[in-house]
This record gives sequence, C-alpha cells and structure tokens, in this order.
Amino acid sequence: MCKGGRMRTVAQQRGEASTRRMIEATRALLAEGGLTAVTVAAVARRAGTSNGSLYHRFGDRQGLLLAVQDSLLTALESEAVAAMEEAVVLEPQEAAARAVGEALRLFADYRPVLRAFFVEGQSIDAFVDRNARCTHLLAAQAESLLVERLGMTPTRAAAVYRVLFSVGAAQSLFTEDQMRQGPVAQDELAAVLTRLVSPGGQ
Amino acid sequence: MCKGGRMRTVAQQRGEASTRRMIEATRALLAEGGLTAVTVAAVARRAGTSNGSLYHRFGDRQGLLLAVQDSLLTALESEAVAAMEEAVVLEPQEAAARAVGEALRLFADYRPVLRAFFVEGQSIDAFVDRNARCTHLLAAQAESLLVERLGMTPTRAAAVYRVLFSVGAAQSLFTEDQMRQGPVAQDELAAVLTRLVSPGGQ
Repeated sequence: MCKGGRMRTVAQQRGEASTRRMIEATRALLAEGGLTAVTVAAVARRAGTSNGSLYHRFGDRQGLLLAVQDSLLTALESEAVAAMEEAVVLEPQEAAARAVGEALRLFADYRPVLRAFFVEGQSIDAFVDRNARCTHLLAAQAESLLVERLGMTPTRAAAVYRVLFSVGAAQSLFTEDQMRQGPVAQDELAAVLTRLVSPGGQ
Repeated sequence: MCKGGRMRTVAQQRGEASTRRMIEATRALLAEGGLTAVTVAAVARRAGTSNGSLYHRFGDRQGLLLAVQDSLLTALESEAVAAMEEAVVLEPQEAAARAVGEALRLFADYRPVLRAFFVEGQSIDAFVDRNARCTHLLAAQAESLLVERLGMTPTRAAAVYRVLFSVGAAQSLFTEDQMRQGPVAQDELAAVLTRLVSPGGQ
C-alpha cells in the first residue's frame, strides 16, 4: 500500500516534470514567434518528448495552448497580487511608485504572453474567457489598491487603471519605433505614471 | 483648346468622384469587418462601380489598401495638426484639456482605421512605412505642444505622449469589457489624462 502509493507519486512527479517542460517549451516558442510558432512537433522537440505524449497529455494543439494560457496567466495573476499586497502596506506615495514599477516590470516580463493571448489570440473564442478573467482580476486588484490606499473614488480608479492597462497593451503590441521616433526613457515613463497614480492630485 | 481642357476637367472630376466613392466604400468595409472585409468585389459593389475600373484605378487590392491607408492617415494627420494649432494659442491649462479632448475624439473617430492599419496591418510590410510616418508626425506635433506650451522637458513630453498614444491604441484593440469589468467614464478618463498633460505637476 505504502510502496504502491510511493510508486504512483514518482510516476506523477515524472509526468508533472514533463508537463512543465512542455509548457516551458511553449512559452519559449511564443516568445520567439507568437502563436503560429507553437506546433505540436516544435513543442515536443524542444521539450525532449514525443508528439504522442503531448497529444496524450493535452489532447491537441488547442488543448496545449489553453493549458499554457491558464498556466501563464495564473503566474501573472499571482505575481500581480503579491506585488499589490506588498504595495498596500506602504505609505501612499511609496505605494504609488511601487505599484507603477511592478506594473511596468510585469508588462515587460509577460510581453510575449500578453501579445500571444491578448493581441494575437484576441479573436480566438477559446482564449476569450480566460483573458477576461485575468484582466478583470487585475483590474479589481489594482483599483482596490487605488481606492483603499491612495484614496481615489472608484470611477477615478477605473480611469487610472485603464491608462495603466493601455500602456502595457501598447508595449505588447508595438515596438518603440512604431509609437514615436526613438525610445522613451523608462524612468521618465515610470515618473509620469507614478504622478498619475499618486494621491492628492484629484 | 479651351473646350478640350474643359472636357478633360469634367472627365477628371468624374474620375475623382469615383475614386472618392471607392475610398469611402473601403473605409466603411474596414469599419464593419477589418482588413479581411475589403475585397475588390465588395468595394466595387458598394461604390457602385465595376471590378474593372477599380483594378484600372488601383492596380490590385493591395494598391487600393495602400491608397486608402494614405488617404485616411493624411486626414487623421490634418485633423490632429489643426487641433494642435488651435490648442497652442490657449492658456496652458485650457490647452491641456483641449489637446486631451481632441486626442480622445480622434481615437474614437479613427478607431476602425487605426485598428485596420496599425493593429491588423502591423506585420504587413506594405503598411509599415506609412504607419510610422503617421505616428512620428503625431508624436512630433504633440510633443512640441507639450514642450512649448506646457513647459515640459522633451523627455517628459515623450513619456506623456507615449501614454496618450497607448490609450488610443488600447481603445482600438480592445472592447471595454476586455480591459476591465464595465466601461470607464469618458469624462473621468479625460480628467485623468488632462492632469497628466497639465503643467506644474512635474
């Protein structure tokens, strides 16, 4: 009984490690070439597994992409919630700067993910629900910080959140040179957004 | 000579009117269904002309789309420049509010155009140069207003412009519900952006 339980665990662990490799391989392919770069063969090759075990685990390419979407958006949500929990205990001005810094960091870290699922995958029905669950969770979290810690009205918090979200979306969609001639200084962008988020200017 | 000149002019006028109808038909189709809705047959039907005269005028579908891109982005640029020229003579606080209001209006009016050429057409080589010429012109105009009238440093103006551009880009790409649960009050969004643009808070 005990031995059987243990053996099952080892098999499970192998399965989980293999699943993680497949998801990691998909993430790397998304970063390199977006959704079209993700084929079952390319993921299997990169994860060092067979097409068969990928089909066995995820059903088909769409099943794989949905699992990866859920895994990566869950990771993004956890990081965002953790960042907000750290910010909420700070003094208001510091909380504003921290929240903006973390938002910009998350936009940059998750650029390929946001681009693949929110931009490229925007009109693919299968992705729509999970995308909306993610944006709604992030909005609710961020707006509650803006209201509770920075003293904004809910309507003001919604407008400020929309601006922050837009900056992330545009960065996922465009290169610097597609937006204006030459890059924008990141510390200046952070300063502008921190001013937007800061209390007292309503 | 005079008569010949006059006849040519009438023929030219007919040609120009027909060209305008084709461009207007394309704009309407873009608004309804994006780039994929624009086919030579659909444009000809809507403009009340033949496929043949459309091919004669534009060469092919890509020629038509490039002409429409140029026509619509030129119109956007003219409106933006005119709005900025009106804003630049106002008192700073009023100039800020006016510039933001006009930017939000242009984003809304040109949503189908921005979506078709900047979002859908982003990776289509033929559109890239004209898109960049448009964004660079808008950036240069807006940033010069921010520097000359609102007293910002050039680096601050670049960051503020980036934020405004992002709001327009996100509105072109996403529905309200894809960004957060429920729409953002437009007057609140305008207030938040006006604060961003206003002098004195640097």
